[in-house]
Amino acid sequence: MPSMSTAHPLVLLTDFGTKDGYVASMKGVILSIFPQATLVDLTHEVEPQNVPQAAFVLECSYSFFPRGSIFVCVVDPGVGSARRILAAKTRQGIFLAPDNGLLTPVLKKGGRYELRSVTNSRFFLRRVSATFHGRDCFAPTAARLAASPALFPRLGPRVHTFRRLELAEPRQRGRNWVGEILYFDHFGNAFTNITADLLERMGAGKEIRVNVKGGNIGEIQDSYFRVRKGTVVPVVSSSGFLEIAVNHGSAREALKLKKGTPVEIRAA
Amino acid sequence: MPSMSTAHPLVLLTDFGTKDGYVASMKGVILSIFPQATLVDLTHEVEPQNVPQAAFVLECSYSFFPRGSIFVCVVDPGVGSARRILAAKTRQGIFLAPDNGLLTPVLKKGGRYELRSVTNSRFFLRRVSATFHGRDCFAPTAARLAASPALFPRLGPRVHTFRRLELAEPRQRGRNWVGEILYFDHFGNAFTNITADLLERMGAGKEIRVNVKGGNIGEIQDSYFRVRKGTVVPVVSSSGFLEIAVNHGSAREALKLKKGTPVEIRAA
Amino acid sequence: MPSMSTAHPLVLLTDFGTKDGYVASMKGVILSIFPQATLVDLTHEVEPQNVPQAAFVLECSYSFFPRGSIFVCVVDPGVGSARRILAAKTRQGIFLAPDNGLLTPVLKKGGRYELRSVTNSRFFLRRVSATFHGRDCFAPTAARLAASPALFPRLGPRVHTFRRLELAEPRQRGRNWVGEILYFDHFGNAFTNITADLLERMGAGKEIRVNVKGGNIGEIQDSYFRVRKGTVVPVVSSSGFLEIAVNHGSAREALKLKKGTPVEIRAA
Repeated sequence: MPSMSTAHPLVLLTDFGTKDGYVASMKGVILSIFPQATLVDLTHEVEPQNVPQAAFVLECSYSFFPRGSIFVCVVDPGVGSARRILAAKTRQGIFLAPDNGLLTPVLKKGGRYELRSVTNSRFFLRRVSATFHGRDCFAPTAARLAASPALFPRLGPRVHTFRRLELAEPRQRGRNWVGEILYFDHFGNAFTNITADLLERMGAGKEIRVNVKGGNIGEIQDSYFRVRKGTVVPVVSSSGFLEIAVNHGSAREALKLKKGTPVEIRAA
Repeated sequence: MPSMSTAHPLVLLTDFGTKDGYVASMKGVILSIFPQATLVDLTHEVEPQNVPQAAFVLECSYSFFPRGSIFVCVVDPGVGSARRILAAKTRQGIFLAPDNGLLTPVLKKGGRYELRSVTNSRFFLRRVSATFHGRDCFAPTAARLAASPALFPRLGPRVHTFRRLELAEPRQRGRNWVGEILYFDHFGNAFTNITADLLERMGAGKEIRVNVKGGNIGEIQDSYFRVRKGTVVPVVSSSGFLEIAVNHGSAREALKLKKGTPVEIRAA
Repeated sequence: MPSMSTAHPLVLLTDFGTKDGYVASMKGVILSIFPQATLVDLTHEVEPQNVPQAAFVLECSYSFFPRGSIFVCVVDPGVGSARRILAAKTRQGIFLAPDNGLLTPVLKKGGRYELRSVTNSRFFLRRVSATFHGRDCFAPTAARLAASPALFPRLGPRVHTFRRLELAEPRQRGRNWVGEILYFDHFGNAFTNITADLLERMGAGKEIRVNVKGGNIGEIQDSYFRVRKGTVVPVVSSSGFLEIAVNHGSAREALKLKKGTPVEIRAA
């Protein structure tokens, strides 16, 4: 039992920020039910209601957590409506999220999964508000699962469909591919939807040139420091996407990039 | 002993921000004294020296923590002066805070309590600075209490008075009530001092209209999604206050609200 | 074993921010290897690539953690280059950091230490990216050390030199000393490189006057509240440096201070 408790971190991902006590209330609920919980903040700085961003941040990091982790994902613009709460059990662990597309990348990548609609109100707080299911539904459900993962089938009925995000995919153009920028990180690095897999299919990384905003920004490097300080450099990010960076700087600012800016790759 | 340690989270609330290592120093002190501590951040983003904001954020979330939790509240503009450090034991747990009003809502709502002035320097670090009592007084006291809650009476003498915040109360105007905006959350939702209790006394929620800045913003709904995206909607917040929200947006920005903006409710 | 695990917190210091899941990925890696880990965030808000700032924040807080703590410091502009990863064992605990000067103050102050270059890839993840050694090298190394501190000698060969920051030192000018501003905290307090030791050598604190930007800002006080609200006051900070503060305000804004602004102290 103690080893089980420590083996299953509860990982929280929200758009709540950290100034209000919303996240803390969720943690209070969890610790009230399961005092031994190991709590980890994935992030609470998803832009308000930005489900695709939450999905992307989750995609980049979930696989680094222990098997059996419980991911509690609450970016939930439909809170209080008839939207379902999903629980997905995958090889990696259990994912709780509103049925709004947030789990699209996880379920696309994760191999086999068991999906349930969380309808069993015995997992919830006795009084469920209409505006804060993170605290009243997600947190207590996660805590009970952390204490007893075998309860998973009791969450509610199996379901076989879920809302999917329409993720922008790179398009082929002759021998080249055109993707786009999905996300900027804290440093101003720009993440594209071009994956390391696609780059490998096109050939060895070193021979692929990257074009952004009409300019050739050079060949893909394996590290930022390969170029001088202040210079733009395309690299394959540590999460497996083509990333546009500036050594010691912000690619977002240097190139005035935006979400959706096209990025073209061509075999040299 | 292990069950005790895990049953009593130490919950930290400060205006220290998280860039400097102040909060981390407090945690280091706590873990030096009580390595098994379960630490939870309530928030560290209270505006500098804003005691009423700290009191409000605490009021909204403390009841969701396990009984026996220890709340360490350090928004302390009078640090180094003769202001007392209070320790309040309530049905909910133990609250440490400077005697500056921060505990007003907790002590108003919390039923019976035992209040002490923390004067026993054996609970403090050996060297107490004049500018960082969070680290030198609050943290070690909290850690020793978490390890041994029975030490509570040794903190110092019982006291029977404390500084109270003058909280703005709604005023009756004929059949209507006029409250005001107290707080904006991360999403730009505006929290008023009009409580769910007052609304219930006026009648069923559905029949109460809300006026802000000369305009009728409609009847109180039970959820954001009842109105279209971008539309203003009054709801009863999950913490029990009348809240003015915008579905998928910021009420603060949409209506240019400020702290103190009057909010009138009228039975239809 | 359980007591050991709880006695050695893993303390994380980075410039990663908290919006992206980078820090969470590090925690996931750590918990995968050592599920009992006690994780503490020192801060993740060091300015991108600002090694001196990281060194200063670490210097102010590390001594408040339990002996045996493991400090994982990842401000790493040279990631992917040939820069070494250092592991230093001091009386305080173990410090992991890139060999870029970050540990300069710790190793200057900390008495005897054993320094190693972390080259043993058996401590790392199997696949090491070129851009995220925090996750792929630092985190797993720290987790294995937390589980088994005795592994320290196996990290790699002993080394006897390391990159040092050139820290600005106060200069003597007649009977006076001229230092400079190194850092601003969350409140806008300005920290100088003038230490409490130097002030003591000059005489009792009360008799030392402080000059900034051509103006005498008065004698050093022991607490902010000694002056009226809004008034500038020099104090000896809780971390042992001369600090310029404003009671209930920001010295940075009030005096338009910058990093490097000279600060002169003179015995009255």
